[in-house]
Amino acid sequence: MKDITLKDQENNLKLVSKLHETHRSIFEINGTQVGKDLLTIAGPCRVESRDQVFKIASYLKSLGVNFFRAGAFKPCTFPNANTGLGKEGLDILQEVREELNVSIVTEAMSIDQVPDVARVADIIQVGARNMQNYNLLEKIAESGVPVLLKRHPGASLRDFLGAAEWVMANGSHKVILCERGVNSFATHDANSRWVTDITVVPAVRKYSHLPIIIDPSHACGIREFVPSISKASIAAGADGTIIEVHYDPDSSVSDPLQAIDFNTFDLLHEKMHQIRKAIT
Amino acid sequence: MKDITLKDQENNLKLVSKLHETHRSIFEINGTQVGKDLLTIAGPCRVESRDQVFKIASYLKSLGVNFFRAGAFKPCTFPNANTGLGKEGLDILQEVREELNVSIVTEAMSIDQVPDVARVADIIQVGARNMQNYNLLEKIAESGVPVLLKRHPGASLRDFLGAAEWVMANGSHKVILCERGVNSFATHDANSRWVTDITVVPAVRKYSHLPIIIDPSHACGIREFVPSISKASIAAGADGTIIEVHYDPDSSVSDPLQAIDFNTFDLLHEKMHQIRKAIT
Amino acid sequence: MKDITLKDQENNLKLVSKLHETHRSIFEINGTQVGKDLLTIAGPCRVESRDQVFKIASYLKSLGVNFFRAGAFKPCTFPNANTGLGKEGLDILQEVREELNVSIVTEAMSIDQVPDVARVADIIQVGARNMQNYNLLEKIAESGVPVLLKRHPGASLRDFLGAAEWVMANGSHKVILCERGVNSFATHDANSRWVTDITVVPAVRKYSHLPIIIDPSHACGIREFVPSISKASIAAGADGTIIEVHYDPDSSVSDPLQAIDFNTFDLLHEKMHQIRKAIT
Amino acid sequence: MKDITLKDQENNLKLVSKLHETHRSIFEINGTQVGKDLLTIAGPCRVESRDQVFKIASYLKSLGVNFFRAGAFKPCTFPNANTGLGKEGLDILQEVREELNVSIVTEAMSIDQVPDVARVADIIQVGARNMQNYNLLEKIAESGVPVLLKRHPGASLRDFLGAAEWVMANGSHKVILCERGVNSFATHDANSRWVTDITVVPAVRKYSHLPIIIDPSHACGIREFVPSISKASIAAGADGTIIEVHYDPDSSVSDPLQAIDFNTFDLLHEKMHQIRKAIT
Repeated sequence: MKDITLKDQENNLKLVSKLHETHRSIFEINGTQVGKDLLTIAGPCRVESRDQVFKIASYLKSLGVNFFRAGAFKPCTFPNANTGLGKEGLDILQEVREELNVSIVTEAMSIDQVPDVARVADIIQVGARNMQNYNLLEKIAESGVPVLLKRHPGASLRDFLGAAEWVMANGSHKVILCERGVNSFATHDANSRWVTDITVVPAVRKYSHLPIIIDPSHACGIREFVPSISKASIAAGADGTIIEVHYDPDSSVSDPLQAIDFNTFDLLHEKMHQIRKAIT
Repeated sequence: MKDITLKDQENNLKLVSKLHETHRSIFEINGTQVGKDLLTIAGPCRVESRDQVFKIASYLKSLGVNFFRAGAFKPCTFPNANTGLGKEGLDILQEVREELNVSIVTEAMSIDQVPDVARVADIIQVGARNMQNYNLLEKIAESGVPVLLKRHPGASLRDFLGAAEWVMANGSHKVILCERGVNSFATHDANSRWVTDITVVPAVRKYSHLPIIIDPSHACGIREFVPSISKASIAAGADGTIIEVHYDPDSSVSDPLQAIDFNTFDLLHEKMHQIRKAIT
Repeated sequence: MKDITLKDQENNLKLVSKLHETHRSIFEINGTQVGKDLLTIAGPCRVESRDQVFKIASYLKSLGVNFFRAGAFKPCTFPNANTGLGKEGLDILQEVREELNVSIVTEAMSIDQVPDVARVADIIQVGARNMQNYNLLEKIAESGVPVLLKRHPGASLRDFLGAAEWVMANGSHKVILCERGVNSFATHDANSRWVTDITVVPAVRKYSHLPIIIDPSHACGIREFVPSISKASIAAGADGTIIEVHYDPDSSVSDPLQAIDFNTFDLLHEKMHQIRKAIT
Repeated sequence: MKDITLKDQENNLKLVSKLHETHRSIFEINGTQVGKDLLTIAGPCRVESRDQVFKIASYLKSLGVNFFRAGAFKPCTFPNANTGLGKEGLDILQEVREELNVSIVTEAMSIDQVPDVARVADIIQVGARNMQNYNLLEKIAESGVPVLLKRHPGASLRDFLGAAEWVMANGSHKVILCERGVNSFATHDANSRWVTDITVVPAVRKYSHLPIIIDPSHACGIREFVPSISKASIAAGADGTIIEVHYDPDSSVSDPLQAIDFNTFDLLHEKMHQIRKAIT
C-alpha cells in the first residue's frame, strides 16, 4: 500500500510512469529545456515591494538566473497571518517579468486565484498543503501554464506521483516535481522542521519521466545548510533547485532564517554548475 | 517551530485555545451533547447502494448509534479511481436520514460540493488531504453545518489546531477534531499505512477546548486492531470514535480490510460505553 | 523487510510466535500471574537514597503495588552524566525487597553488572539502548531471572520480537515486552521526545504469545499525559504498565518532568483496575 | 531535549564539539589523511571466502581504493541467522591486509571480540545496533584502533554525537562518524528500510570537528539508488563513503540487493573524485 506497485505503474500512474528505461520529459520554458538544462529558480520568499523584487531579480539576472520566484499569495498555518500582497504582488511580478525578461514562478492557493496567477506566471506553483487539493490541481492544469508541484512533507512517493498524475490527467504535461523536505524525528536544529529526502531523486528517476527539483530552503529551514544540500541535490541527479535568496535575509518578512544572501548564492550557483558538469 | 508555543496560544490559536483550565466546548447535534456524551459515528466507507445504506444504518440505529457515516464523494490517490456515487449517494443519505431519523456525517471534497453536502449532512467531514485547503475550510465554515476535521497524517498538532482555527475564524464554532493515524516508520502490518497517535488526545485537552474523536479504522488499516484501538481511545479520554462497519466487510467497495462486521461492532460498542463509565 | 512475514514467523521467530490463535504465555513472579493478572510496576526513575526508596515503596505497597522499579545503574546519552548509585543502589534495593517483601525491577547495562543485578532483581530490565546488544541479552537470559525487554524508539516490531527471540533462544522464557515510545515527527510538547505506539499492543497479540506492558512515563515525557496513556494502555489490552512515581516529582534527580505524584498515581491505579474489569 | 543545545555543546559534548569555527579533525590512517583526503571504503558485506575477499580487494586496489570493508562477525535481527565466519574470517582479512597492503575496516560486535578484531583492523566498526552499547564503546576506544561509529537509524544527532563523546572520553580521538539511513515513513521501494539523512553532513560540520562519511548501501537498501546517493554525499561535503561492492552482487550471502558490481563502482569512484574536485 505504501510503496509503488507494478499495478500502480500499469493502471494508476499511466501518464507519470516511464514508457521505457531512458524515457525523460524535456519541455521548453522561455528558452530553458527543463529536464535537460540545469534549472535554477531563485528569489525571495514573498513579494515585499517593487524595489525588493527588482533589486533581487536584477541581481539574479546578472548571474544568468532567469527564473524568479516570489509569492504574492502565501498560505499560512494560522488565519491571522499576513497572506501576502495578493493582486498587488502579481502586478509587481508582471512588471519585473516584462522589464527584465525573467520567468515568474509563483503560487496559486485557491481556484479563484488561478486566472490572475496564470496571466503572470510562467510556472504556477502548487504549495505542499495543496498537493492533494484535486480541485485546485484541475484548475491549474486547465490553465495550460507549466506546474511546479511541491511534495507535502507527509506524502509518500506514491501520493506524490499520484498528484502529478491528476495534473497530467487534466491536460497539463509540463509538470515539475519539487521535494521540499519530509517529516522526520531526525531534525538537526531547533529551527528546522523537516529533512531533505534526497533519495526521492533516484526514486523519481526509477518510476517517472518527469523532472524533479529540490527546494533546499524549506527542506533545511536554516540558511547555513542550504549550500550543502543544494550541491547534494545536483550531484544526486536533480534537474535543478529552487532557492530563497534575499539581499538582506534577516529582514525578510517571512522565513528570514532560510534565505541566503547574494554572495552565498553567487558561489553556490557556480558550484552547482561545476557539479552538474562533473556528473555528466 | 514544531511544538505549540505560548505565543501561538495567545496570538495564533485564540479561538481554539482554552480560556481556563477546565474549558471544554460542548455543542448539541440532534440531541447528542458532543464533548460530553460519548459520540459514536459508524457506517460503511462509502455509499454503495440504497439497500446497503439502509441495512447498515438500521442495524446501527437498533444499537442506539444515531450518527451514520458514508461517503458519497470519495477522494482517491489516483485520478482513474472510482470517486463515489456523488449526488446520487447524497440522495440516498437524505432518504436514510429522513426515514430512520439518523444524523449524517459525510465529506465535501471541493467548494462546489459544499451546498449539496450541507443540505444532507448533520456534520460535514473535511478529509485529511484537505486539512489545509483553506478555501474549502472557509466555504464549509460558512455553511453553518458542524465540521469533522480530519488530521492529515503528516500534520503536527500545531498544524492541526491551526486548521481548526481557520474554521472557527470563518464563523463555525462546532468543530470536532479527528485523529486518523500519522506517518511513522513503525507500521505493524503489510496492509497498514499509519499509526494511531493516541497521545494527541491528552495533548488536545491541554491546548484546546474542542472535542476530539478517533478514527481507528483508517489509523489501523486492518480490522483486527480496530477494537483494541477503539477502546484505548475512549480510555485515553477521547470524546468518541468514527468506525467503519459493514455487514460483509470483505465485499466493501473500498477499504475492505478495515471495516468490522456487525457482531464485532456490537461487542465493541458495549465495551466502549463500559470504559467510558469506568473512567468518569 | 520491514513488516513481519510468514517466513519470519515460521523460521526466525519460532519461540516468540504463537502456536495457536489463543496461545498466551502466563508465568508467575512472586505470586503474580504475569500475562493474566494486571501487572503494575511503579517507583522512581532511580535509587536516590535509602529514605527515598523506602518512602515510595512503602506507599506503593499500601496500595497493593508489589513490583518496585528504580535504577541503580542508569544509562545516559553523555559520558559525563551521573550514572547512578551502582552497587550501593543495589544494596538499598535488596533491603527494601527483604523488609517490605516487594519485587524488584531494575536494569543491567553491561554484562559485568549481570551477576550483581541478578541477585537483587526479580525482573531484570534491558534498556532501550541495549535492545539489540545480543551479548548482554545472552548473559541476562542465562541468569534465569525474568526479563523486561524495552523496545528501542527506533525498532520496528520485527526488530523488537527478534530481540525477544534472542532472549528466549538463550534459555529464558519469562520475557515481558515493554513499549516506551517510538520516534516520530509528531511530538506534542517541547519536552517530549517520543510518541506512544499504542497499536503495538494488538500487534504483539497477533504475532506473539508474550506479555506486553507500556511505560507511559518515558513514552510521554511529561507527567500530565501519563494518566491518559496509562488508561489507554490497559484498554488496548496491555498486560500492565511501568510508571514513574515520586513523592516530590520535581525533585527527582533524573526525568523530573515525567514522574507523577502519589495522589495522581492512587487515582490512576484505581482507574486502571476498573478499565481492566470493564474490558474482560 | 531533541536538538543539541548550547548547554550540550559546553558541558556534554566537550570533546566532540568544535573549538572554533573552522576546527576540523584530520588524522592519518595508513597514509590517508582522514578528514582531508576523500576516504573511500569498499568491499563486500561479509567475508565469504578467501577467494572472494582477494578477488574484490585486488580489484579495488587496482583502482587505488585502499580501505577494504568486510564483516567477519555479522550482527543479525534473529538468533538463528548466519553470523559470519568469525575468527576464520579475521584470518582471511589479515592475509589480504598483508599481501595486498590494504587497510581493513571490520566490525566488533561484543567486548570479547575486541582483542581479535583489533589485531586485524585498521578501523574498527561499531554497528548501528551497538551505537549506545557503552560497554563496547569503552573497550573499542581502549584498543587504540580508529573507530567507525555507525549511527543507529533511530538516533538523533544529539544521541549520535553523544556516542562519539563516549568513545573520545575513553581515550580514542580517531572517530569517524557514519550515517547509514534513518527511520522514516518515506521509503521509496519495497526493499528499502531507511532513508539517507543527507542533512546530517552539514549538521555535523556545524556542531563537531569529527569527520563524517556516508554508507549509501545500507541507507538505500537497493543498488540502483547507490550511485546517486554516493555522489550526493560527496557534494554535501561528506569526508567519504563506505560502499558495498561485489563481483557478483546477486550471489552475496547477505544483503544481495544493495551491493553494486565492479563496473558501476569504477564509474562511481571516478565521479566522486570529480565532484570532490568541483566543490573544493
